[in-house]
Amino acid sequence: GYSRLQRSVEGLAGAAEWPAIRALLPDLYGLEVADLGCGFGWFCRWAAEQGAAGVLGLDVSDKMLARARAETTDARVRYDSADLEKLELPKASFDLVYSSLAFHYIEDFAGLLATIRRALKPGGRLIFSIEHPIYMAPRQPAWLTDEDGGRIWPLNSYQIEGKRLTNWLAEGVVKQHRTMGTTLNLLIKSGFAIAHVEEWSPSDEDLALHPDWAIERERPMFLLISTRT
Amino acid sequence: GYSRLQRSVEGLAGAAEWPAIRALLPDLYGLEVADLGCGFGWFCRWAAEQGAAGVLGLDVSDKMLARARAETTDARVRYDSADLEKLELPKASFDLVYSSLAFHYIEDFAGLLATIRRALKPGGRLIFSIEHPIYMAPRQPAWLTDEDGGRIWPLNSYQIEGKRLTNWLAEGVVKQHRTMGTTLNLLIKSGFAIAHVEEWSPSDEDLALHPDWAIERERPMFLLISTRT
Repeated sequence: GYSRLQRSVEGLAGAAEWPAIRALLPDLYGLEVADLGCGFGWFCRWAAEQGAAGVLGLDVSDKMLARARAETTDARVRYDSADLEKLELPKASFDLVYSSLAFHYIEDFAGLLATIRRALKPGGRLIFSIEHPIYMAPRQPAWLTDEDGGRIWPLNSYQIEGKRLTNWLAEGVVKQHRTMGTTLNLLIKSGFAIAHVEEWSPSDEDLALHPDWAIERERPMFLLISTRT
Repeated sequence: GYSRLQRSVEGLAGAAEWPAIRALLPDLYGLEVADLGCGFGWFCRWAAEQGAAGVLGLDVSDKMLARARAETTDARVRYDSADLEKLELPKASFDLVYSSLAFHYIEDFAGLLATIRRALKPGGRLIFSIEHPIYMAPRQPAWLTDEDGGRIWPLNSYQIEGKRLTNWLAEGVVKQHRTMGTTLNLLIKSGFAIAHVEEWSPSDEDLALHPDWAIERERPMFLLISTRT
Protein backbone atom coordinates (compact mmCIF):
# COMPACT_ATOMS: atom_id res chain seq x y z
CA GLY A 1 0.00 0.00 0.00
CA TYR A 2 0.85 3.68 0.17
CA SER A 3 3.10 3.33 3.22
CA ARG A 4 5.65 1.31 1.19
CA LEU A 5 6.04 3.84 -1.61
CA GLN A 6 9.49 5.40 -1.85
CA ARG A 7 7.98 8.80 -1.01
CA SER A 8 6.35 7.35 2.11
CA VAL A 9 9.55 5.75 3.33
CA GLU A 10 12.02 8.47 2.35
CA GLY A 11 9.66 11.41 2.54
CA LEU A 12 10.22 14.42 0.30
CA ALA A 13 13.58 13.08 -0.87
CA GLY A 14 11.78 10.04 -2.27
CA ALA A 15 9.46 12.12 -4.46
CA ALA A 16 10.94 12.75 -7.90
CA GLU A 17 9.06 16.01 -8.37
CA TRP A 18 9.92 17.49 -4.96
CA PRO A 19 12.88 19.64 -6.12
CA ALA A 20 10.61 21.18 -8.77
CA ILE A 21 7.87 21.94 -6.24
CA ARG A 22 10.35 23.30 -3.72
CA ALA A 23 11.65 25.69 -6.37
CA LEU A 24 8.15 27.17 -6.66
CA LEU A 25 7.73 27.80 -2.93
CA PRO A 26 8.33 31.19 -1.31
CA ASP A 27 10.58 31.59 1.73
CA LEU A 28 8.43 30.00 4.45
CA TYR A 29 9.98 31.94 7.32
CA GLY A 30 7.22 33.36 9.49
CA LEU A 31 4.41 32.11 7.26
CA GLU A 32 1.17 30.40 8.22
CA VAL A 33 0.97 27.26 6.11
CA ALA A 34 -1.74 24.67 5.43
CA ASP A 35 -1.01 21.31 3.77
CA LEU A 36 -4.12 19.74 2.24
CA GLY A 37 -3.67 15.97 2.10
CA CYS A 38 -0.64 15.97 4.38
CA GLY A 39 -0.33 12.18 4.66
CA PHE A 40 2.50 11.28 7.01
CA GLY A 41 3.40 14.94 7.54
CA TRP A 42 6.70 15.08 5.68
CA PHE A 43 5.98 18.49 4.17
CA CYS A 44 4.55 19.88 7.43
CA ARG A 45 7.74 19.06 9.30
CA TRP A 46 9.88 20.44 6.48
CA ALA A 47 7.86 23.67 6.52
CA ALA A 48 8.41 24.03 10.27
CA GLU A 49 12.15 23.46 9.75
CA GLN A 50 12.11 26.29 7.20
CA GLY A 51 10.77 28.59 9.89
CA ALA A 52 7.04 28.62 9.20
CA ALA A 53 5.18 30.29 12.06
CA GLY A 54 2.49 27.62 12.04
CA VAL A 55 1.64 24.58 9.96
CA LEU A 56 -1.74 22.90 9.73
CA GLY A 57 -1.72 19.44 8.17
CA LEU A 58 -5.09 18.07 7.05
CA ASP A 59 -5.84 14.59 5.81
CA VAL A 60 -8.84 12.30 5.54
CA SER A 61 -6.83 9.29 6.75
CA ASP A 62 -6.73 8.98 10.54
CA LYS A 63 -4.11 6.25 10.20
CA MET A 64 -1.77 8.60 8.38
CA LEU A 65 -2.48 11.42 10.82
CA ALA A 66 -1.64 9.12 13.73
CA ARG A 67 1.76 8.38 12.25
CA ALA A 68 2.25 12.05 11.34
CA ARG A 69 1.57 13.07 14.95
CA ALA A 70 3.87 10.35 16.30
CA GLU A 71 6.72 11.59 14.11
CA THR A 72 6.26 15.30 14.80
CA THR A 73 7.68 16.99 17.88
CA ASP A 74 7.50 20.61 16.73
CA ALA A 75 4.64 22.40 18.51
CA ARG A 76 4.16 24.72 15.51
CA VAL A 77 2.76 21.78 13.54
CA ARG A 78 -0.85 20.69 14.09
CA TYR A 79 -2.75 17.94 12.33
CA ASP A 80 -6.45 17.57 11.87
CA SER A 81 -8.81 15.20 10.13
CA ALA A 82 -10.61 16.72 7.16
CA ASP A 83 -12.39 15.64 4.00
CA LEU A 84 -11.27 18.01 1.23
CA GLU A 85 -14.67 17.53 -0.48
CA LYS A 86 -16.32 19.54 2.30
CA LEU A 87 -13.42 21.44 3.72
CA GLU A 88 -13.89 24.34 6.08
CA LEU A 89 -11.03 26.68 6.85
CA PRO A 90 -10.83 29.86 8.89
CA LYS A 91 -10.95 32.99 6.72
CA ALA A 92 -7.83 34.98 5.80
CA SER A 93 -5.60 32.75 7.92
CA PHE A 94 -2.88 31.33 5.68
CA ASP A 95 0.00 32.74 3.66
CA LEU A 96 0.47 29.49 1.78
CA VAL A 97 -1.86 26.63 1.01
CA TYR A 98 0.11 23.66 -0.26
CA SER A 99 -1.08 20.32 -1.58
CA SER A 100 0.77 17.39 -3.09
CA LEU A 101 -1.04 14.89 -5.32
CA ALA A 102 -4.41 15.18 -3.59
CA PHE A 103 -6.62 17.48 -5.69
CA HIS A 104 -7.08 14.97 -8.52
CA TYR A 105 -9.23 12.88 -6.18
CA ILE A 106 -11.57 15.83 -5.52
CA GLU A 107 -14.90 15.97 -7.31
CA ASP A 108 -15.92 19.49 -6.23
CA PHE A 109 -12.69 21.25 -7.14
CA ALA A 110 -14.47 24.59 -7.65
CA GLY A 111 -15.88 24.40 -4.12
CA LEU A 112 -12.49 23.54 -2.68
CA LEU A 113 -10.84 26.44 -4.52
CA ALA A 114 -13.43 28.88 -3.18
CA THR A 115 -12.69 27.67 0.36
CA ILE A 116 -8.94 28.00 -0.16
CA ARG A 117 -9.28 31.46 -1.69
CA ARG A 118 -11.21 32.71 1.34
CA ALA A 119 -8.71 31.09 3.71
CA LEU A 120 -5.74 32.93 2.20
CA LYS A 121 -4.47 36.19 3.64
CA PRO A 122 -4.04 39.08 1.17
CA GLY A 123 -1.17 38.11 -1.15
CA GLY A 124 -1.41 34.51 -0.01
CA ARG A 125 -0.59 31.71 -2.42
CA LEU A 126 -1.85 28.30 -3.44
CA ILE A 127 0.86 25.96 -4.75
CA PHE A 128 0.00 22.36 -5.57
CA SER A 129 0.70 19.26 -7.61
CA ILE A 130 -1.70 16.80 -9.22
CA GLU A 131 -1.41 13.89 -11.59
CA HIS A 132 -1.12 15.37 -15.07
CA PRO A 133 -4.34 15.01 -17.10
CA ILE A 134 -2.35 13.44 -19.93
CA TYR A 135 -1.35 10.73 -17.47
CA MET A 136 -4.85 10.29 -16.12
CA ALA A 137 -7.00 10.53 -19.24
CA PRO A 138 -6.46 7.26 -21.16
CA ARG A 139 -8.92 4.37 -21.03
CA GLN A 140 -5.93 2.00 -20.88
CA PRO A 141 -3.09 3.95 -19.26
CA ALA A 142 -0.21 1.59 -20.05
CA TRP A 143 2.79 2.08 -22.32
CA LEU A 144 2.75 0.67 -25.84
CA THR A 145 5.77 0.02 -28.03
CA ASP A 146 6.00 1.11 -31.66
CA GLU A 147 7.68 -0.74 -34.54
CA ASP A 148 11.02 0.89 -33.79
CA GLY A 149 10.91 -0.02 -30.10
CA GLY A 150 9.91 3.51 -29.12
CA ARG A 151 7.46 4.09 -26.32
CA ILE A 152 3.94 5.34 -26.91
CA TRP A 153 1.58 6.76 -24.31
CA PRO A 154 -1.89 5.73 -25.54
CA LEU A 155 -3.73 8.99 -25.13
CA ASN A 156 -7.48 9.15 -25.59
CA SER A 157 -10.58 10.40 -23.76
CA TYR A 158 -8.67 13.57 -22.91
CA GLN A 159 -11.73 15.76 -23.37
CA ILE A 160 -14.03 13.37 -21.51
CA GLU A 161 -13.79 14.69 -17.99
CA GLY A 162 -14.86 12.92 -14.83
CA LYS A 163 -14.16 9.63 -13.11
CA ARG A 164 -11.15 7.47 -13.77
CA LEU A 165 -10.83 4.17 -11.97
CA THR A 166 -7.41 2.99 -10.94
CA ASN A 167 -6.28 -0.16 -9.22
CA TRP A 168 -3.00 1.41 -8.20
CA LEU A 169 -2.23 0.73 -4.50
CA ALA A 170 -5.84 -0.18 -3.77
CA GLU A 171 -8.73 -1.53 -5.82
CA GLY A 172 -11.22 0.88 -7.25
CA VAL A 173 -9.69 4.21 -6.28
CA VAL A 174 -11.60 6.95 -8.10
CA LYS A 175 -9.73 9.88 -9.59
CA GLN A 176 -11.27 12.92 -11.26
CA HIS A 177 -9.94 13.78 -14.69
CA ARG A 178 -10.01 17.44 -15.62
CA THR A 179 -8.26 18.89 -18.64
CA MET A 180 -5.41 21.32 -18.11
CA GLY A 181 -7.70 24.07 -19.39
CA THR A 182 -10.42 23.26 -16.89
CA THR A 183 -7.99 23.24 -13.97
CA LEU A 184 -6.43 26.57 -14.99
CA ASN A 185 -9.77 28.23 -15.75
CA LEU A 186 -11.25 27.12 -12.41
CA LEU A 187 -8.25 28.66 -10.66
CA ILE A 188 -8.59 31.92 -12.58
CA LYS A 189 -12.36 32.12 -11.97
CA SER A 190 -11.73 31.47 -8.27
CA GLY A 191 -9.49 34.52 -8.01
CA PHE A 192 -6.04 33.02 -8.44
CA ALA A 193 -3.47 34.39 -10.86
CA ILE A 194 -1.42 31.69 -12.56
CA ALA A 195 2.25 32.24 -11.63
CA HIS A 196 3.90 29.10 -13.02
CA VAL A 197 2.86 25.84 -14.66
CA GLU A 198 5.31 22.95 -14.54
CA GLU A 199 4.72 19.72 -16.38
CA TRP A 200 7.29 17.76 -14.49
CA SER A 201 9.88 15.76 -16.29
CA PRO A 202 13.31 14.59 -15.16
CA SER A 203 16.17 17.07 -15.47
CA ASP A 204 19.49 16.05 -17.02
CA GLU A 205 20.84 15.65 -13.48
CA ASP A 206 17.89 13.40 -12.63
CA LEU A 207 18.61 11.22 -15.65
CA ALA A 208 22.29 10.92 -14.76
CA LEU A 209 21.23 9.46 -11.39
CA HIS A 210 18.16 7.57 -12.64
CA PRO A 211 18.54 6.58 -16.30
CA ASP A 212 15.27 4.61 -16.09
CA TRP A 213 13.36 7.88 -15.64
CA ALA A 214 13.96 8.74 -19.32
CA ILE A 215 10.53 7.40 -20.19
CA GLU A 216 9.02 10.24 -18.15
CA ARG A 217 10.07 12.61 -20.94
CA GLU A 218 7.64 10.93 -23.32
CA ARG A 219 4.64 12.36 -21.47
CA PRO A 220 4.21 14.36 -18.26
CA MET A 221 3.18 12.49 -15.11
CA PHE A 222 2.84 15.40 -12.69
CA LEU A 223 1.41 18.88 -13.05
CA LEU A 224 2.72 21.53 -10.64
CA ILE A 225 0.90 24.85 -10.42
CA SER A 226 1.91 27.96 -8.55
CA THR A 227 -0.54 30.82 -8.07
CA ARG A 228 -0.72 34.30 -6.60
CA THR A 229 -3.64 36.27 -5.20
CA GLY B 1 -2.21 23.75 -50.67
CA TYR B 2 -3.45 26.09 -47.98
CA SER B 3 -5.78 27.98 -50.30
CA ARG B 4 -8.02 24.90 -50.69
CA LEU B 5 -8.54 24.29 -46.97
CA GLN B 6 -12.09 24.74 -45.77
CA ARG B 7 -10.97 27.70 -43.65
CA SER B 8 -9.35 29.34 -46.67
CA VAL B 9 -12.43 28.93 -48.83
CA GLU B 10 -15.12 29.65 -46.25
CA GLY B 11 -13.08 31.90 -43.99
CA LEU B 12 -13.83 32.03 -40.27
CA ALA B 13 -16.99 29.94 -40.71
CA GLY B 14 -14.83 27.13 -42.07
CA ALA B 15 -12.63 26.99 -38.96
CA ALA B 16 -14.01 24.59 -36.35
CA GLU B 17 -12.44 26.48 -33.46
CA TRP B 18 -13.60 29.95 -34.55
CA PRO B 19 -16.71 30.12 -32.30
CA ALA B 20 -14.50 29.29 -29.30
CA ILE B 21 -11.97 31.99 -30.20
CA ARG B 22 -14.70 34.54 -30.90
CA ALA B 23 -16.11 33.87 -27.42
CA LEU B 24 -12.76 34.93 -25.94
CA LEU B 25 -12.59 38.25 -27.80
CA PRO B 26 -13.60 41.58 -26.28
CA ASP B 27 -16.03 43.92 -28.01
CA LEU B 28 -13.87 45.24 -30.85
CA TYR B 29 -15.74 48.52 -31.26
CA GLY B 30 -13.24 51.37 -31.42
CA LEU B 31 -10.21 49.15 -30.83
CA GLU B 32 -6.87 49.14 -32.60
CA VAL B 33 -6.25 45.54 -33.66
CA ALA B 34 -3.26 43.67 -35.08
CA ASP B 35 -3.55 40.20 -36.65
CA LEU B 36 -0.24 38.33 -36.73
CA GLY B 37 -0.31 35.80 -39.53
CA CYS B 38 -3.41 37.24 -41.15
CA GLY B 39 -3.35 35.04 -44.25
CA PHE B 40 -6.17 35.99 -46.60
CA GLY B 41 -7.48 38.62 -44.16
CA TRP B 42 -10.69 36.93 -43.01
CA PHE B 43 -10.24 37.99 -39.41
CA CYS B 44 -9.11 41.53 -40.34
CA ARG B 45 -12.28 42.13 -42.33
CA TRP B 46 -14.42 40.62 -39.58
CA ALA B 47 -12.74 42.88 -37.01
CA ALA B 48 -13.51 45.94 -39.14
CA GLU B 49 -17.15 44.81 -39.43
CA GLN B 50 -17.26 44.64 -35.64
CA GLY B 51 -16.32 48.29 -35.52
CA ALA B 52 -12.57 48.16 -34.88
CA ALA B 53 -11.03 51.62 -35.33
CA GLY B 54 -8.08 50.19 -37.23
CA VAL B 55 -6.83 46.75 -38.21
CA LEU B 56 -3.27 45.86 -39.20
CA GLY B 57 -2.87 42.46 -40.84
CA LEU B 58 0.66 41.08 -41.04
CA ASP B 59 1.84 38.01 -42.89
CA VAL B 60 5.06 36.67 -44.32
CA SER B 61 3.31 35.49 -47.49
CA ASP B 62 3.06 38.18 -50.14
CA LYS B 63 0.75 35.92 -52.15
CA MET B 64 -1.72 35.77 -49.30
CA LEU B 65 -1.41 39.50 -48.67
CA ALA B 66 -2.15 40.21 -52.34
CA ARG B 67 -5.39 38.25 -52.12
CA ALA B 68 -6.20 39.83 -48.75
CA ARG B 69 -5.80 43.32 -50.24
CA ALA B 70 -7.88 42.39 -53.29
CA GLU B 71 -10.74 41.22 -51.10
CA THR B 72 -10.68 44.14 -48.67
CA THR B 73 -12.42 47.44 -49.40
CA ASP B 74 -12.56 48.87 -45.87
CA ALA B 75 -9.98 51.66 -45.47
CA ARG B 76 -9.58 50.87 -41.77
CA VAL B 77 -7.82 47.62 -42.72
CA ARG B 78 -4.14 47.72 -43.72
CA TYR B 79 -1.90 44.83 -44.64
CA ASP B 80 1.84 44.61 -44.44
CA SER B 81 4.52 42.02 -45.03
CA ALA B 82 6.29 40.87 -41.87
CA ASP B 83 8.32 37.94 -40.61
CA LEU B 84 7.10 37.22 -37.08
CA GLU B 85 10.60 35.93 -36.18
CA LYS B 86 11.89 39.51 -36.34
CA LEU B 87 8.75 41.51 -35.93
CA GLU B 88 8.82 45.19 -35.17
CA LEU B 89 5.69 46.97 -34.00
CA PRO B 90 5.07 50.54 -32.86
CA LYS B 91 4.98 50.86 -29.08
CA ALA B 92 1.73 51.06 -27.09
CA SER B 93 -0.35 51.08 -30.26
CA PHE B 94 -2.81 48.17 -30.07
CA ASP B 95 -5.72 47.23 -27.84
CA LEU B 96 -5.78 43.69 -29.16
CA VAL B 97 -3.14 41.52 -30.76
CA TYR B 98 -4.73 38.47 -32.33
CA SER B 99 -3.14 35.46 -33.99
CA SER B 100 -4.60 32.26 -35.36
CA LEU B 101 -2.44 29.14 -35.79
CA ALA B 102 0.80 31.01 -36.50
CA PHE B 103 2.86 31.07 -33.29
CA HIS B 104 3.70 27.36 -33.38
CA TYR B 105 5.94 28.06 -36.37
CA ILE B 106 7.92 30.66 -34.43
CA GLU B 107 11.32 29.73 -33.02
CA ASP B 108 11.92 32.88 -30.95
CA PHE B 109 8.57 32.95 -29.17
CA ALA B 110 10.02 34.85 -26.19
CA GLY B 111 11.27 37.59 -28.50
CA LEU B 112 7.92 37.81 -30.27
CA LEU B 113 6.08 38.07 -26.94
CA ALA B 114 8.34 40.89 -25.79
CA THR B 115 7.56 42.77 -29.01
CA ILE B 116 3.82 42.21 -28.61
CA ARG B 117 3.88 43.25 -24.96
CA ARG B 118 5.54 46.56 -25.86
CA ALA B 119 3.09 47.10 -28.72
CA LEU B 120 0.02 46.81 -26.48
CA LYS B 121 -1.63 49.84 -24.95
CA PRO B 122 -2.23 49.72 -21.17
CA GLY B 123 -4.86 47.05 -20.57
CA GLY B 124 -4.36 45.65 -24.07
CA ARG B 125 -4.74 41.96 -24.73
CA LEU B 126 -3.11 39.14 -26.63
CA ILE B 127 -5.50 36.39 -27.74
CA PHE B 128 -4.24 33.57 -29.94
CA SER B 129 -4.51 29.98 -31.04
CA ILE B 130 -1.80 27.42 -31.80
CA GLU B 131 -1.67 23.75 -32.53
CA HIS B 132 -1.94 21.97 -29.20
CA PRO B 133 1.39 20.52 -28.01
CA ILE B 134 -0.30 17.14 -27.51
CA TYR B 135 -1.14 17.23 -31.21
CA MET B 136 2.32 18.33 -32.24
CA ALA B 137 4.59 16.31 -29.98
CA PRO B 138 4.48 12.71 -31.30
CA ARG B 139 7.20 11.24 -33.47
CA GLN B 140 4.46 9.55 -35.53
CA PRO B 141 1.37 11.75 -35.20
CA ALA B 142 -1.21 9.36 -36.65
CA TRP B 143 -4.13 7.60 -34.97
CA LEU B 144 -3.77 4.01 -33.81
CA THR B 145 -6.60 1.61 -33.05
CA ASP B 146 -6.76 -0.51 -29.92
CA GLU B 147 -8.11 -4.08 -29.59
CA ASP B 148 -11.63 -2.80 -28.98
CA GLY B 149 -11.58 -0.53 -32.01
CA GLY B 150 -11.02 2.54 -29.87
CA ARG B 151 -8.78 5.33 -31.10
CA ILE B 152 -5.37 6.03 -29.58
CA TRP B 153 -3.30 9.16 -30.05
CA PRO B 154 0.31 7.92 -29.89
CA LEU B 155 1.79 10.48 -27.57
CA ASN B 156 5.51 10.61 -26.96
CA SER B 157 8.39 13.13 -27.02
CA TYR B 158 6.12 15.58 -25.21
CA GLN B 159 8.96 16.92 -23.09
CA ILE B 160 11.40 17.07 -26.00
CA GLU B 161 10.86 20.59 -27.24
CA GLY B 162 11.94 22.00 -30.56
CA LYS B 163 11.52 21.19 -34.22
CA ARG B 164 8.76 19.02 -35.61
CA LEU B 165 8.70 18.28 -39.31
CA THR B 166 5.38 17.95 -41.04
CA ASN B 167 4.48 17.18 -44.59
CA TRP B 168 1.00 18.61 -44.22
CA LEU B 169 0.15 20.96 -47.13
CA ALA B 170 3.78 21.29 -48.09
CA GLU B 171 6.90 19.17 -47.71
CA GLY B 172 9.18 19.86 -44.81
CA VAL B 173 7.29 22.55 -42.96
CA VAL B 174 9.00 23.08 -39.61
CA LYS B 175 6.91 23.59 -36.49
CA GLN B 176 8.21 24.39 -33.02
CA HIS B 177 6.96 22.16 -30.24
CA ARG B 178 6.69 23.77 -26.82
CA THR B 179 4.96 22.18 -23.86
CA MET B 180 1.85 23.82 -22.48
CA GLY B 181 3.90 24.81 -19.42
CA THR B 182 6.58 26.50 -21.52
CA THR B 183 4.02 28.49 -23.51
CA LEU B 184 2.17 29.65 -20.37
CA ASN B 185 5.37 30.45 -18.46
CA LEU B 186 6.79 32.47 -21.37
CA LEU B 187 3.56 34.48 -21.45
CA ILE B 188 3.67 35.10 -17.69
CA LYS B 189 7.35 36.06 -17.76
CA SER B 190 6.63 38.45 -20.64
CA GLY B 191 4.08 40.34 -18.57
CA PHE B 192 0.82 38.70 -19.63
CA ALA B 193 -1.77 37.46 -17.14
CA ILE B 194 -3.44 34.23 -18.23
CA ALA B 195 -7.18 34.92 -18.58
CA HIS B 196 -8.45 31.71 -20.19
CA VAL B 197 -6.99 28.50 -21.60
CA GLU B 198 -9.13 26.51 -24.01
CA GLU B 199 -8.12 23.11 -25.28
CA TRP B 200 -10.57 23.08 -28.13
CA SER B 201 -12.85 20.15 -28.64
CA PRO B 202 -16.21 19.95 -30.43
CA SER B 203 -19.29 20.97 -28.48
CA ASP B 204 -22.40 18.80 -28.43
CA GLU B 205 -23.88 21.13 -31.07
CA ASP B 206 -20.75 20.68 -33.19
CA LEU B 207 -21.09 16.90 -32.99
CA ALA B 208 -24.77 17.01 -33.95
CA LEU B 209 -23.73 18.81 -37.15
CA HIS B 210 -20.42 16.98 -37.67
CA PRO B 211 -20.52 13.47 -36.12
CA ASP B 212 -17.08 12.74 -37.61
CA TRP B 213 -15.54 15.35 -35.30
CA ALA B 214 -16.04 12.98 -32.33
CA ILE B 215 -12.46 11.82 -32.62
CA GLU B 216 -11.36 15.33 -31.67
CA ARG B 217 -12.50 14.60 -28.11
CA GLU B 218 -9.81 11.94 -27.76
CA ARG B 219 -7.06 14.57 -27.71
CA PRO B 220 -6.99 18.34 -28.19
CA MET B 221 -5.93 19.67 -31.57
CA PHE B 222 -5.99 23.41 -30.88
CA LEU B 223 -4.91 25.49 -27.91
CA LEU B 224 -6.61 28.88 -27.47
CA ILE B 225 -5.15 31.33 -24.97
CA SER B 226 -6.56 34.62 -23.82
CA THR B 227 -4.44 37.04 -21.81
CA ARG B 228 -4.68 40.40 -20.07
CA THR B 229 -2.04 43.00 -19.32
